[in-house]
This record gives sequence, structure tokens and C-alpha cells, in this order.
Amino acid sequence: MLTYSFDNLGNTPLYEHLYKCIKNDIANGILTAGMKLPSKRSFAKNLGVSAITVENAYAQLLSEGYIYSVPKKGYYISDFTSEFTHSNPQPSKNIPVPSTDIVYYADFSSNQTRPENFPFSVWAKLMRETMYDKNTELMTKSPSGGILELRQAIAVHLRQFRDIHVEPEQIFVGAGTEYLYGLLIQFLGFDKVYAIENPGYEKIAQIYHSYQVNYQFIDMDAHGIRIDKLEQANADVVHISPSHHFPTGIITPVSRRYELLSWAAKSDSRYIIEDDYDSEFRLTGKPIPALQSIDIMEKVIYINTFTKSLSSTMRISYMVLPRSLAARFLTQMSFYSSTISNFEQYALMRFIREGYFEKHINRMRNYYHKQRDYLLETIKKSPLSSFATITEEDAGLHFLMKIDTDIPDAVIQERVRNKNIRLNSLSQYYNEPTQDVEHIFIINYSYVEAEHIPKAIDGLYQCLME
Amino acid sequence: MLTYSFDNLGNTPLYEHLYKCIKNDIANGILTAGMKLPSKRSFAKNLGVSAITVENAYAQLLSEGYIYSVPKKGYYISDFTSEFTHSNPQPSKNIPVPSTDIVYYADFSSNQTRPENFPFSVWAKLMRETMYDKNTELMTKSPSGGILELRQAIAVHLRQFRDIHVEPEQIFVGAGTEYLYGLLIQFLGFDKVYAIENPGYEKIAQIYHSYQVNYQFIDMDAHGIRIDKLEQANADVVHISPSHHFPTGIITPVSRRYELLSWAAKSDSRYIIEDDYDSEFRLTGKPIPALQSIDIMEKVIYINTFTKSLSSTMRISYMVLPRSLAARFLTQMSFYSSTISNFEQYALMRFIREGYFEKHINRMRNYYHKQRDYLLETIKKSPLSSFATITEEDAGLHFLMKIDTDIPDAVIQERVRNKNIRLNSLSQYYNEPTQDVEHIFIINYSYVEAEHIPKAIDGLYQCLME
Repeated sequence: MLTYSFDNLGNTPLYEHLYKCIKNDIANGILTAGMKLPSKRSFAKNLGVSAITVENAYAQLLSEGYIYSVPKKGYYISDFTSEFTHSNPQPSKNIPVPSTDIVYYADFSSNQTRPENFPFSVWAKLMRETMYDKNTELMTKSPSGGILELRQAIAVHLRQFRDIHVEPEQIFVGAGTEYLYGLLIQFLGFDKVYAIENPGYEKIAQIYHSYQVNYQFIDMDAHGIRIDKLEQANADVVHISPSHHFPTGIITPVSRRYELLSWAAKSDSRYIIEDDYDSEFRLTGKPIPALQSIDIMEKVIYINTFTKSLSSTMRISYMVLPRSLAARFLTQMSFYSSTISNFEQYALMRFIREGYFEKHINRMRNYYHKQRDYLLETIKKSPLSSFATITEEDAGLHFLMKIDTDIPDAVIQERVRNKNIRLNSLSQYYNEPTQDVEHIFIINYSYVEAEHIPKAIDGLYQCLME
Repeated sequence: MLTYSFDNLGNTPLYEHLYKCIKNDIANGILTAGMKLPSKRSFAKNLGVSAITVENAYAQLLSEGYIYSVPKKGYYISDFTSEFTHSNPQPSKNIPVPSTDIVYYADFSSNQTRPENFPFSVWAKLMRETMYDKNTELMTKSPSGGILELRQAIAVHLRQFRDIHVEPEQIFVGAGTEYLYGLLIQFLGFDKVYAIENPGYEKIAQIYHSYQVNYQFIDMDAHGIRIDKLEQANADVVHISPSHHFPTGIITPVSRRYELLSWAAKSDSRYIIEDDYDSEFRLTGKPIPALQSIDIMEKVIYINTFTKSLSSTMRISYMVLPRSLAARFLTQMSFYSSTISNFEQYALMRFIREGYFEKHINRMRNYYHKQRDYLLETIKKSPLSSFATITEEDAGLHFLMKIDTDIPDAVIQERVRNKNIRLNSLSQYYNEPTQDVEHIFIINYSYVEAEHIPKAIDGLYQCLME
């Protein structure tokens, strides 16, 4: 395999160095037209760099036309003998065109809402009514945290669904959870140490990294994030999803929740960010109280979103700050304009207030329940069942499937991709490659079509037999 | 006047110290019920702190019920002898409820769109059609920089209206210009020195401050930002609005534009952020080319917004990156989800593509032209005209009015406020209080109703005679 030295780079980013090395070899005829480049993962392993580094180098080469990609195959060296040939689709451009997303036969990694599940006719009606009734309000600047009526509607929803009792003024809405994370870094401080779950949702680390703050990966045990590691890391702010951790599905029990609150109470600078992203879709069992609802020390910042419960393409999330923080947030941060259009704020306010949201959640919960049961049943009936152990299937929109096999995760993923199936492995969500979580896959069932499930499960089984 | 020492505060923020001092004096009976607190401005001057410090301390005291405010009068010490009296309106709460915005008879500070000027019926039609036609697309994740069709429509618009020739892939849309500023800080680096215009739009400084980066106020001369000061400040990134500076209205001439480009070309780390926020509404004269369109060194990041041209309550702005930066931005920043809902992206795409945007701009330009002419004519006919000198009236949605008077700006503003008129002074937009720009007011005519203009101008005149 190709090997390059990464010594003495100075300030050059790793990916740029790799990009230059490959470009050089192409220019010098060492790499020639049609040659296949190593897969990102194996190349990264071989070079001792992260997969992201290789990905960025490939993206750069791709954007400049040095290489081209063949879906489901890999990356190949372009042909420079004639410009504008099929093998060199963008010779004159140097910006990578966002690739059109592949539509999978079964995508177990997607959290999108299926078009047939979105209440288009209700939403169209509410939008029409809003534009008819509220001309003046629609043109009047929204407060930074969102229009009060929407926050009132969210306060009522939180009381009914989650037993969280807060004033509308403690609620701040924004264009997606990622945006709110950024606001919180600005608010809580660039000098703080942020602790995030390992494994965890990859974007959380990316955001803290992008803000150039000190963030630490903290290991989990069966009950959630480890308090001893939190202490060791000197963390100020811990960012967790205790009600249904992604991707492990761990539900942090009450005892650990109190330990977390106790940890936070020990210092003025300590806070807990509780991301409750899919709590509306708990399928069985008694809900565990949100940390927010048992926090009497004003230490918990609660975050939830409509991107999971309504659609990921409608960018509305919200956070609930403790009273004292809310007052300070208002003083310090409300110079920012609201990031959500008034049109959607008013339509969503009506959607909640007029009972459509509750109906929608109930309908979706039934739908996900059925999806899950059908999926579990299909697995059970399939020969795959003798290789598969299902865990964490009782909450949220995904479960874990451990497969009894020696085939590496990457190979399985490559094989299923050839059958037009997409599957993420648990190991992808760890900060560092780790052996002991091999062969565990995340089965997200929110976007897969029911009629595709049997063939997809059979496809998974076939991949183990190849 | 009240005086407190600000020595030996350690880590305590100034505002918190001030808040505690006042709270203490209330507790000890030194400040008693009904006593009026000094105005923020004069108190700040007396204490040698910024007005923001006093404002934050007052906000905190207000939120905890220690003081109360009387609109147009000031702040008073609450009565603690009986709780829940009128003088202590929020005794049980500690979050300041966002005050309902006062509706002014004439608001010369507002940049909102009047409801009668927004094309509701067209927007409703496009939204309806979008929801009917595009179910699948509406539920499919948008690329981080926005859906490609919208970026294509913006590219065509930029070519036609601004002679800016770019690929759609260089365009990135986001939920408001403020959001894009934040993305750019993350992208260009927390280690850079940012230069902003003095005077300037106050939010720009607030955002850089919130991101805790090094930012420097750079003085302007009659041609725009001063290059010598830029050099002195060791700036890396300069953030300007050369086509129509807010609030001075200065249009940076071509020669200074080339000087700016030349400044940027001198170092790899230097970039220019060109905010072209109201270029669609140039009323007379030949438009000066955007810096972006004469930049061959890939140094200019162009920003524009639909919040001015359509409605400030619809949060859609965009930036155009030079090709090389766009490629890097895509690699580094596109992990972020789009902050604009697909519904509005598709509706706006149609609005531009089907010619409605062009029609709307032409209609609004006529409307603003008429508003300005009527306002200038009304001033001319009024006795105010012998005190008033109008400048920078040829571009954008505001002009400056210098008043020949000895009455301090704050007094004039207080007097007009009593007549339900809102007026900002130029001096408010300077980093530090400055004497030589006294008596210049910003007349924004986008939101004032035409039929209110005569009475508002007469009110202004009366205020000078009081």
C-alpha cells in the first residue's frame, strides 16, 4: 500500500500534506490513470492518521479533478491525457460539488422522517391560516429566544409530556440543537473544560472542536457517563444524553443522575447539558425523570428538538435554562436575532397548541413501535437470528445488534453497501479505535420502509455468509 | 450621585459588583422605596464604567424585583413593605420578562418591513405549491450550505443585480448574517485579529466579543475604513460594508477599494468580509462594483441577506466564498446542519427563480424612493429645515440629519420619545463617546408610515423649541 512520511510537517495540516504527496505522485507518473486508491479506513490505519485526514485529502483531490469516485467501489486516479473525459468530470473546477446523496434500499443509519409520515396537509393549513391572520406579527421582530406564544406552547408540552415545570421565559428556541450548543459555549465560556460522552454523537465533538475549546472524551459504563473520569478530567460542563444515549441506548438510572447532580453542585462553574433529543418516542416502561426536573441547584440546561419529532429538515430546537442562568442569558446573549423565521414559529405554535403535535407524536410512536416489532420479528424468523443479539430495544428510534462473527465491521459494512444497505457500527462512535466493541451495529428503524425490511435482513445474513 | 469603588474585584464581573453594591444599600436602608436611580448613561460616566455594565446591573436588580422601571422616566427602588404591590411587579420571579415592544408613532430606528409591503399572497402560493410538489425533497436533509437549487437561484440573482459571477457551490446560506459571522470566526480562526468599523453596526462588535476573539475598532474617514489604522492594529480580517456604511452612509470609492484589496494581498492570513446588506436598494447613481467582483486574489468574503430585501423576520442570509476558501470551508465546516428549514429554502428558490424577487425589489425601491422624497420634502417645508442638514441621502434605507442645536443628543432623544417617536443618534454607534459627532441623527425611513411623517417632523421641530 502507498506510504508517506508525516514527519517535519511544521504548520501544514496532515490532510494537506497527504493531498500534496498524492498529487505529486500523480504529477510524476507514479500513480497513473485508473489506479485504485486504498480505502479511506485501511489507508488511515496504514499511515497512522485518522480516517478524517484521508477523507479530507481525497475530497481535495476529488474537487480538483485529480481523482474520481465510483459509487460503492472507491477512488481512482483520473486520466489527464484528454480533458473533459468521463474519468475527469470536473477538471476546470476546484470546488467539490456536494455529491447527490445515494438513495439506499434500506438505510439503517438515517434519522430522516419519511415523507408519508409528515403531516403536510395540517402544516399547509396552519401556514395558510398564519399568513392570513398574523400579517403584523409575522413582520414584527421576534425576541432573541423566540416568540413568547411558542415558548408558552412548549412549556405546556414539557409539563404534559415530561413533567418539566418551567416558565416560558426560561425557554430559548433556535435553529437546531447544533446552533444552541454554540450559543452555550459563548455563554458558559471559552475557558471552561467541556466533557462529552465516549462513545457519542460525533457532531458534539466537532462543534466543541470548531469553537476551539478544551473538550474531553469521557468513558461510559453501563449506567452512563463515569463520574470518576469526569473528576479526573477537571470538567466544568458535562454534555450528556442520559435518557437515551446515542448510540449505545444506555438509560442512566436515577442513582447515577443524583451522582451527576451532586458532582455539579460541588463547584459554581459546573453545569450539566442534558440533551433529551428523542424522549418523545420512549416505547415501553416508565419514563425516568429528566435531570432537569430533579435539579434544585439550578445546574441543568435541558435541550430538546423538533428535528426528531417533526422533521430533521425543519430546524427548530429549544433549551431550558435554570432561572438564574436564564436571567443572565437574556442580558448577555439576547443581542442575537432569533434564528427561526416567524412564519415557522407561529405555525409550530399553532401545531402544538391545537393538539396536532400530541396526535403526531402518538401516531409516530405507534408507527415506530410497529416498525421495531416487525424488524425484531423478521430478524427472529431469519437465519440471521442465530448470529444476532439485540440490546437496548426499549427506547428511542434505534437498537443495537451484536453479530457473532469474525468478519471485521468495515468488511460487513462494505458488503452491505454493495447490496445498497447502509449500516453504522458502534465502533465508529468512539474517539479512538477500540477492539472490544467490534461487531455491534446500530439499527435505526425510523427511515427504513417496512416492505424493504425482509430483503434487507436477508441481505445482512448473506453478507455474513459471503 | 451614588459612587462605588471598583477596586480589588478579583474575578467578579463589574456589573455583578455594582449589582451587589446597590442591593446592599437597599438592604441596609440607604436606598429607600421610591428613590430614583441615576440614568444609565450618567451613572456609567460617574463610575467610569461602560453603560452596558450599569445596564446589566439594573437588569439583574429589575429581574429580582429590587428596582422597578417607569417607561420614559427611569429606575426606582422597590417598596418592600408589602409584597405584590404595583411598585414591585415581579417579586416572585427572577427572570426579566421580555418587555412587549412599544409601538412608536414614528420609529426612525427600525428596519422592519411594513406588513403591507410583504408579498403574502405570492409567498402563500409558493409555500402551498412547494408542499404539494416537493414532499420528498422537503423531508430530505439539506446540504450544510443550503439546497443547490436555491444557491443556483442566488447565483443568477447576483449576476443580474450585482455583476458578481460565482458558482452556486461558492454560496453558503444560513439563518441570518449574525449566524454566518459566527461560522466565519470558527472558519478563519480564533487566533486572528478582526478589525471592525468605528462607528459601525453595534452587533458586529457584540458577536466578536461573544466569541472572545481579538477585535479592534478602526476609525473611518470620508472614504471608509482607514488603511493606516488597519496596519497599526495588525489586523488579519477586516469586516466592512463599503457599498453603504451603516450608520454614516459612506460609500467607499473605487480607489480605496483597491487599497483594501492591496492591503489584503500583503499576507496569507488577511481577508476582507464585505457586508453588502442593502445594495438592492441603491436609489440613484451608478453602482460601485462590489469588492468581491474586483478581487482576483481570492481575499473577499461577500455577505448579503434577504432579511433586508424581504423581511427581517425571515432569517435567510448568504455568503460567497472565493473558490479556494469554499473548498476548505466545505471540508472543515459542512458537518454543521443547515440552519434554514427546507420549506423556506424551496419557497425562496421559487420566489427568486419565478421573477417575484426582482418584482418585489423594484416595487420596494420605488416605495423607498417615494418615502425618502416625501420625507425630504416635508423637512424642507417645515421650520425644522433651518436647523437641519441632510447628508448621504442617495443610497440605502436611511440618511443622516445634522441638527444645528446645543441640546445634547440624549435630551433630544428623550423629548422625541415622549412624543412616541424613536430616533437614534450617530454617536451611539461609536465605540467611545465622542463629542464631534453630536447632533447627527439617523433617519431610517423603511418602517415609518407616510401619513405619520408630517406630524413626526413637526414633533422633532417642537422638541428643539422646548
